[in-house]
Amino acid sequence: MDLFMKCSIEEAEAGLREGGIPIGSVLVRNGQIISRGRNRRVQENNPILHAEIDCLINAGRIRNYSECTLYSTLMPCYLCAGAVVQFGIGKVVAGESVNFAGAREFLESHAVEVIDLDLEVCKEMMAAFIREHPDIWYEDIGET
Amino acid sequence: MDLFMKCSIEEAEAGLREGGIPIGSVLVRNGQIISRGRNRRVQENNPILHAEIDCLINAGRIRNYSECTLYSTLMPCYLCAGAVVQFGIGKVVAGESVNFAGAREFLESHAVEVIDLDLEVCKEMMAAFIREHPDIWYEDIGET
Repeated sequence: MDLFMKCSIEEAEAGLREGGIPIGSVLVRNGQIISRGRNRRVQENNPILHAEIDCLINAGRIRNYSECTLYSTLMPCYLCAGAVVQFGIGKVVAGESVNFAGAREFLESHAVEVIDLDLEVCKEMMAAFIREHPDIWYEDIGET
Repeated sequence: MDLFMKCSIEEAEAGLREGGIPIGSVLVRNGQIISRGRNRRVQENNPILHAEIDCLINAGRIRNYSECTLYSTLMPCYLCAGAVVQFGIGKVVAGESVNFAGAREFLESHAVEVIDLDLEVCKEMMAAFIREHPDIWYEDIGET
């Protein structure tokens, strides 16, 4: 498997062990991981800490994101896709988009390259969480 | 002046006194402010802490945002507009959009009501900051 997605999955699994939503993310530049993050809504009681946002916070201030690729175990939502578009991140690689379609069209309409790896491991992990904790999941994506 | 925008401006002014970017925000529900925030990129070295995001973090976990209105001294960018759309915030009130056009069309295309108060005080505060600190401002909106 793609090494960067493997690291994103490790983040998601760490989140799950903490009692959180199992979504992980890494930010890559020049073939190297420069930050990692995971969804921490539950752990920190923070609605903004989606995996991709946590990862971008951990990356610190960056002057130019154009050479960066953001990996996530799940297709980014509008919040995270908005960050990608605003900061000019050039590429997004998602582990799956079956459990959540996300904002792929929005990203592509702003010239962001999007790759969906459609991985069973990501689909199964997310499907199991949604089945067991539907309230937390629908809260996380703002669906009531 | 609108009381809620007045409070947003107070947040922006507090940020300026801290050496930060002068953008402030409040979240309102049922005619009451439920949280306040300000841009803290500089103060916290955190690229995600736009005023609106800081305000949403301070509001904590909310199950349903549909009755909420997000005020900001400046038209929200794609990051913050993405949060509005994802969480289903019904209305955005901006202090101005002259110094930064923001993501108004994106918000409106997702059925968010947007009001631009076009206030001199907001325009002057932001214009002065951009004139004095262009590097920080363009970093904040991901322009290189």
